Amino acid sequence: MGKVSFDMSVSLDGFMTGPDDNAEQALGEGGERLHEWLYDLASFHAGHGREGGQANRDSEVLEEAFRNTGAVLMGRRMFDFAEPAWGDNPPFGVPVFVVTHNGRDPIPKQGGTTFNFVTGGIESALDQARAAAGDNDVMIAGGANVVQQSLRAGLIDEFQIHIAPVLLGAGRPLFGDLAAEHIELETTRVIESPGVTHLRFRVVK
Amino acid sequence: MGKVSFDMSVSLDGFMTGPDDNAEQALGEGGERLHEWLYDLASFHAGHGREGGQANRDSEVLEEAFRNTGAVLMGRRMFDFAEPAWGDNPPFGVPVFVVTHNGRDPIPKQGGTTFNFVTGGIESALDQARAAAGDNDVMIAGGANVVQQSLRAGLIDEFQIHIAPVLLGAGRPLFGDLAAEHIELETTRVIESPGVTHLRFRVVK
Repeated sequence: MGKVSFDMSVSLDGFMTGPDDNAEQALGEGGERLHEWLYDLASFHAGHGREGGQANRDSEVLEEAFRNTGAVLMGRRMFDFAEPAWGDNPPFGVPVFVVTHNGRDPIPKQGGTTFNFVTGGIESALDQARAAAGDNDVMIAGGANVVQQSLRAGLIDEFQIHIAPVLLGAGRPLFGDLAAEHIELETTRVIESPGVTHLRFRVVK
Repeated sequence: MGKVSFDMSVSLDGFMTGPDDNAEQALGEGGERLHEWLYDLASFHAGHGREGGQANRDSEVLEEAFRNTGAVLMGRRMFDFAEPAWGDNPPFGVPVFVVTHNGRDPIPKQGGTTFNFVTGGIESALDQARAAAGDNDVMIAGGANVVQQSLRAGLIDEFQIHIAPVLLGAGRPLFGDLAAEHIELETTRVIESPGVTHLRFRVVK
């Protein structure tokens, strides 16, 4: 069975969006800053069906994060915000399971992505994602609420954060609502780049 | 003129104490975990007038943080909590300026530490600390409130955080209340150790 993980870009003060994130600006005010490190990477371009871009260590880190992904889990809010931008050929290429309160029929897209809507809660959604992934990994794409639920429920095996050197001061915190859990981690890799620091952790169970 | 900086140990989710920090447990519940990386270092022992301990890279990082410190700035809350523990020979050896609403006479201690109480606000306290430090640096020792005030006021030149691989889930956030400031940083050094990751930043002004 594969592992369950997430990969998130955050500010040094732990925000994954700027303030006032909404359907018009999914990353909130100033939140684009957090993803600046990846927009010009070769693997980012490739993931969006384009050529070119920088083929460097950051590009490898990004490519590697998706390499063994067999299924994706995400929250309904993230789906609603980002679905229009993803268009007809979303950058997943695998089954995506959306945790929601309102069931609806699956939405097949081009390139192997199908959005499935799961009403039974995060553990049920993860069970379905694991089944779809087989021996491959399940990536939790976000948002913060789904990441926090997964951490609280002990469902995460490992994760990586990409720290952008900026203090946003406000926004949606990645780890904001863990409700006084004490979760011990092991740092498994640190990669320094000029515009981002990649920190990878294993959850100690 | 020296630089103004701070050095803080935080959890990966950005807390510098666990929940319920008070005079009995200054680091809050579980907060000692954040400082585990330093208790056995040679430079930590030396700072407390003891011999022994590990002489490794972490020890150098800690030693270096205090090397050019000519004065220390701290908040009243931190002073109140920690002063009993520091005893007659506090681990500073330089003038300390405490930002407070209630003036009182300076308290000289052994080893070069004198606690001075400044009622004119953080900028006034920093002016006095700079004057006392001369060509050496001013270190902001904490707590979070004084760090945040200093960042908001653009008073910090550089800082280092020591990330302990743990999610505390609650406590006192180091960067919690920056009130939607957007502060651009430059990552100037990353050092990985088994039990802690040291990230150093310059504030881009």
